[in-house]
Amino acid sequence: MTSHVALVSRALGCQKIYMTYLDESISKTLNDINKRWGGKDQFEIEYVDDWKALIRSWKKSRGVIVHLTMYGININDMLPQIDIKRKILVIVGASKVPREVYSMADYNIAIGHQPHSEVSALAIFLDRLSNGMDLMTNFKDAKINIIPSKDGKNIRIT
Amino acid sequence: MTSHVALVSRALGCQKIYMTYLDESISKTLNDINKRWGGKDQFEIEYVDDWKALIRSWKKSRGVIVHLTMYGININDMLPQIDIKRKILVIVGASKVPREVYSMADYNIAIGHQPHSEVSALAIFLDRLSNGMDLMTNFKDAKINIIPSKDGKNIRIT
Repeated sequence: MTSHVALVSRALGCQKIYMTYLDESISKTLNDINKRWGGKDQFEIEYVDDWKALIRSWKKSRGVIVHLTMYGININDMLPQIDIKRKILVIVGASKVPREVYSMADYNIAIGHQPHSEVSALAIFLDRLSNGMDLMTNFKDAKINIIPSKDGKNIRIT
Repeated sequence: MTSHVALVSRALGCQKIYMTYLDESISKTLNDINKRWGGKDQFEIEYVDDWKALIRSWKKSRGVIVHLTMYGININDMLPQIDIKRKILVIVGASKVPREVYSMADYNIAIGHQPHSEVSALAIFLDRLSNGMDLMTNFKDAKINIIPSKDGKNIRIT
């Protein structure tokens, strides 16, 4: 699950993913993807020991904290309120997100109010936030590039 | 992974998910969700033995076949071409989607051209297709309803 969260972050234009626990397999997956599809210098993983300190320093530097939760306010109502010129920290988690996250976040945003998954919630949020531009993401150092095709697989390898 | 595809389908307004293999744990997950969050009569799983026959009969009844693949044409270019008044069959799969799917599909659509996941691809596609209305999904027979909250969890149990 978490490796899919990482892949979505990378594919949809984030610069970094912070993780509260070390997971070698996720670093490995991302390194493999970065090697083939590019992004080595554009997307990275950072391990954070103290997530509360991260939130506090993010706020201090005028960043915005968004927590995705189905208990929050529907994104259809909230999106216009987010200042997209500021840097945004998106928090996603499984069911066990600590209570404090709800109060520390600037926005608790629901990607609908039905259970689905943090992968899908993050994907929709990033897509909405970028107004679709996330899906044009390309990395300069890619060894594989897809040539969009109507009915097959077409790639350019460099 | 597949149970997340099922949850996304249910949460974002699909009526049915067709599966090419039987998986008791997915039926169980969905039944549990439907019992608490509603949707028993609005969302179902159907096992299909012959997926090609399904595609052919879907086409015969004037349905549209959309295959989500990063090798396809970017959704930013394709979305306006899809006739949303027709019923739509969305095909997602892991890396091993048979070649024939590419030729049988009316549209091979890329939710970006970077690797992420079928869960995120499906989520973004459904969100785009419904123009955000998917995220207002609610089920009549729900026992639990979320009261959207700015900073906590607020539910109504009936």
